[in-house]
Amino acid sequence: MSPFASSAARTGTWRHLRLEIRDGVATVTLDRPGKLNALTFGAYADLRDLLAELSRERLVRALVLAGEGPGFCSGGDVDEIIGATLAMDTAQLLDFNRMTGQVVRALRECPFPVIAAVHGVAAGAGAVLALAADFRVADPTARFAFLFTRVGLSGGDMGAAYLLPRVVGLGHATRILLLGEPVRAAEAERVGLLSELTAEGEADERAAALARRLADGPALAHAQTKALLTAELDMPLGAAVELDAATQALLMNGADYAEFHAAFTGKRPPVWQGR
Amino acid sequence: MSPFASSAARTGTWRHLRLEIRDGVATVTLDRPGKLNALTFGAYADLRDLLAELSRERLVRALVLAGEGPGFCSGGDVDEIIGATLAMDTAQLLDFNRMTGQVVRALRECPFPVIAAVHGVAAGAGAVLALAADFRVADPTARFAFLFTRVGLSGGDMGAAYLLPRVVGLGHATRILLLGEPVRAAEAERVGLLSELTAEGEADERAAALARRLADGPALAHAQTKALLTAELDMPLGAAVELDAATQALLMNGADYAEFHAAFTGKRPPVWQGR
Amino acid sequence: MSPFASSAARTGTWRHLRLEIRDGVATVTLDRPGKLNALTFGAYADLRDLLAELSRERLVRALVLAGEGPGFCSGGDVDEIIGATLAMDTAQLLDFNRMTGQVVRALRECPFPVIAAVHGVAAGAGAVLALAADFRVADPTARFAFLFTRVGLSGGDMGAAYLLPRVVGLGHATRILLLGEPVRAAEAERVGLLSELTAEGEADERAAALARRLADGPALAHAQTKALLTAELDMPLGAAVELDAATQALLMNGADYAEFHAAFTGKRPPVWQGR
Repeated sequence: MSPFASSAARTGTWRHLRLEIRDGVATVTLDRPGKLNALTFGAYADLRDLLAELSRERLVRALVLAGEGPGFCSGGDVDEIIGATLAMDTAQLLDFNRMTGQVVRALRECPFPVIAAVHGVAAGAGAVLALAADFRVADPTARFAFLFTRVGLSGGDMGAAYLLPRVVGLGHATRILLLGEPVRAAEAERVGLLSELTAEGEADERAAALARRLADGPALAHAQTKALLTAELDMPLGAAVELDAATQALLMNGADYAEFHAAFTGKRPPVWQGR
Repeated sequence: MSPFASSAARTGTWRHLRLEIRDGVATVTLDRPGKLNALTFGAYADLRDLLAELSRERLVRALVLAGEGPGFCSGGDVDEIIGATLAMDTAQLLDFNRMTGQVVRALRECPFPVIAAVHGVAAGAGAVLALAADFRVADPTARFAFLFTRVGLSGGDMGAAYLLPRVVGLGHATRILLLGEPVRAAEAERVGLLSELTAEGEADERAAALARRLADGPALAHAQTKALLTAELDMPLGAAVELDAATQALLMNGADYAEFHAAFTGKRPPVWQGR
Repeated sequence: MSPFASSAARTGTWRHLRLEIRDGVATVTLDRPGKLNALTFGAYADLRDLLAELSRERLVRALVLAGEGPGFCSGGDVDEIIGATLAMDTAQLLDFNRMTGQVVRALRECPFPVIAAVHGVAAGAGAVLALAADFRVADPTARFAFLFTRVGLSGGDMGAAYLLPRVVGLGHATRILLLGEPVRAAEAERVGLLSELTAEGEADERAAALARRLADGPALAHAQTKALLTAELDMPLGAAVELDAATQALLMNGADYAEFHAAFTGKRPPVWQGR
């Protein structure tokens, strides 16, 4: 638990998603299977606030984002989101779209790796949530559909026009975001969108195993690696190398680096503390 | 037609290329087949000014760039360009190279998607024109040759050292630009340079079909997606997410988004206006 | 030889690596085969100072970095580096990590292409040295292991979190740097980490042939292409296009461009001077 707690209360119940925390691994499950886990305003807001809370509490060393039922997430609900936004004024529209962007920033900037466990449809905002994760562990039923232009909107939703070219290159990203066609598991693997392609039905299980491994490992090293990957996309080489030097000097003062050396010279496995 | 017309006259005839505009799709054809569509000073200047004119007139919602005859474009003409530049002074050389760069900026920044239809050779500046397009639709005869170093020049011509690493990654881009060897269709597809590999002889037809689809769809959404892809290569994550939020709020006030919802709830196909 | 020599003496003997310079090609060989060429403080310092010396002397037009014995380089020595850093204070740790970063910056910024000839293990700092090269010529025994997190450190060592996403995309880079698992030759080729996959045992020979070809070609054009590739990763499109225009105008005043035209019109092969 972080010593830097403010007066803010811890949330007792997240009403718009399912949360389980077990020994440093948080599992967040989108849980509206009858609606393919379509996102509501409440689900976006819960994701935004949950990620902020987990980031400051420091209870969690890895997070899995998964979907209950036949698919991962079909994106913003046509009735509850698209219909509702048609009645909003400009300030409300900006508020909504900033909130969804905050979820993506939180996924990229939270101090633990995020693993999206994808099966079935990952459409619209669901595809961007998976894209913003550090790992996409998917089974052969997975299909990613950045279908924003199909509803008359920009393919650059929630940072997709920033992230996708940096994951799959500008050529594939342009095609995928402009046309909005589904990217099936085989193509996703070919273009570099997948971290791991599992056997059918095993995405959740493999994602959980990866999260466990990350949480039980040198978690501060993992967190800093993620932070550098995120930050250095936006930094020139000279500044990146300087940030790396400072980070590495910091971690060389840490417990886990000393533990590695002691374990190596003692010919035993290291016992990581994540510090 | 845009209401923002100035006193500038519309160009009646483009002498250095062929232009056809039909129902929102412009087809620009390089038309010196006996010279493999080698570019002249006039062809560069026509491309620069045509793209500027199309960008302000708003008649066009998609553009195809194609080559007549046995290849797409063999690049700058050895006699008319290389020979002529050898007689230029420094200011003239800078003028020429700025003009060619302006063509690439115009391709990246024009408010409609650009589709390069590539068969046969796309060499030198011809390869960069294709690279600067949003889509590269190519048939198996296509070969891209960034052969600038072969003539003693920098591989970073017309933005190639900026664009190519962002399309195929720094490793492939370094090899391709430093060595200047031809990249044939199969390799181009493998490294992510192609948007679509067609059957032999069908690049023009498939590019036309794609342009028609884009022009008949939610064209403002397409234009904004392209604008974000271009802009967000040069923006940090936080700014990109903010730009996305503002863009999406804007388009949620637009006609096509409302039309999507009306069509979806009415169980009919949407009729896009591009607004 | 450069006319811009200062009072600094030329180093007579590099004690921590092997150097051979022959007709414009430098071959730097890591030469502790009994330790898989594990790096020492001296080896890092030699690489830093050698690259600076070669960059200002202008004797060299291409450089090969190779490893003697069963592998390319196993990274920082566990005893001589990890053990020693555990006894360092904060300022010393920063000094060490800045030095290693300076080697990577020198590899990216030196005015000649660098070719890593990789067989067997390229681990830790050895993997980053290969990554920072312009070309990675590897045989099927090559395996790249960015294993920093395995020792409790950040995967973003020596610019790896900047470079790897720009070579293989953010998805693969995240997986490779966070998990630290070996990337074998076949995967390295698939994700774009290799420039050339050779037959077994032929990486050194093929790297030497490539260096010879680069050194005998239009070497100033090669150097400027490398410089633009490095610089334009950190520049917006408009500035990149302007830099390209200025560079190309410069080279159009150069000897090699005129030589190309004379050779082409004279139907003979060009004789490059690298000027």
